[in-house]
Amino acid sequence: MVFNERGYHATRLEDIAEALGMQKGSLYNYIDSKEALLLAVVTPPATQLLDSLSTLAESDLPASEKIRLVARGHARILEEYLPYVAVYVHEIAGQSHSEKWREMDRSYVRHLSAIIDDGRQTGLFDPATDPLISAMALIGALNWMTRWYVRSGTLSAEEIAERIATTFLAGLLARNQPAAPRSDDQE
Amino acid sequence: MVFNERGYHATRLEDIAEALGMQKGSLYNYIDSKEALLLAVVTPPATQLLDSLSTLAESDLPASEKIRLVARGHARILEEYLPYVAVYVHEIAGQSHSEKWREMDRSYVRHLSAIIDDGRQTGLFDPATDPLISAMALIGALNWMTRWYVRSGTLSAEEIAERIATTFLAGLLARNQPAAPRSDDQE
Repeated sequence: MVFNERGYHATRLEDIAEALGMQKGSLYNYIDSKEALLLAVVTPPATQLLDSLSTLAESDLPASEKIRLVARGHARILEEYLPYVAVYVHEIAGQSHSEKWREMDRSYVRHLSAIIDDGRQTGLFDPATDPLISAMALIGALNWMTRWYVRSGTLSAEEIAERIATTFLAGLLARNQPAAPRSDDQE
Repeated sequence: MVFNERGYHATRLEDIAEALGMQKGSLYNYIDSKEALLLAVVTPPATQLLDSLSTLAESDLPASEKIRLVARGHARILEEYLPYVAVYVHEIAGQSHSEKWREMDRSYVRHLSAIIDDGRQTGLFDPATDPLISAMALIGALNWMTRWYVRSGTLSAEEIAERIATTFLAGLLARNQPAAPRSDDQE
């Protein structure tokens, strides 16, 4: 991937055309900016992630289970599209000029906050839980994996996300509840 | 800050010289690259953060208190040097070409992991805690604040970090506390 070899900002559209064996002019027939190119690659997985989050949000699962599934899904996409997601997370997320992408980012945060808020309101999570801060903390912990996760390590991205979610959920649980079994113990 | 207005990668050394009212040639007498310039700005707070973490790691405080203080210190630096830290986190951290900076990043992770591991070994934290994954999750949650924290919000960066640390620590705490030390055969 030419973005990853040269860095997103150092990559010119000419370099991409060259990597694809095309003239720059021909490439411009298809795509008009580097951001558009990157977004074309990350659109299918991002849409898939958002759709599954939205379905999950509507389901009857307990909030803790929804969060665990969100974290695993997030990590699966991250692993599958690693270099593209890493570029997206650090170069585009939160500062895209595209309203469509800003809305997708916001929608993800909104769904996750709503799940956490639901867990708080039903007494599963501590009443002092701040849904937005908690959502951003989990998203940050997962997105930061793009900076240190390597495919050659002992654990898959999904296994790491499972551990992050386990600690996170244990932290959210209302203190007077019997602790939920840690999934580590069960596996 | 010219990096922040134009974006780090779109900023040329000429733009910085112009913002400082200097000729580009004169600026080159002092500094030879954008990365060097950014690092010159973030070196004092980064050194300060690392020094205080290293002092803290040696202290007799409980691991949970150390982690709370690390999180607050991290957020204070983030708030004070916000645009520079944001550029550092997304453009440099984990991919700097400077060995000195890579070593500072590693050192931060190493100290934080060691504190978490100490809490695990003394029975304060759950024995299933993975010190490295936990350290990276906390660093990720705090660093991600550069993408959403705004100074005009209700809470200061330090107050947000305090909440993140509270959830994180509640997640790490051994579930059967306060109780007799766990026998070895449980692990």
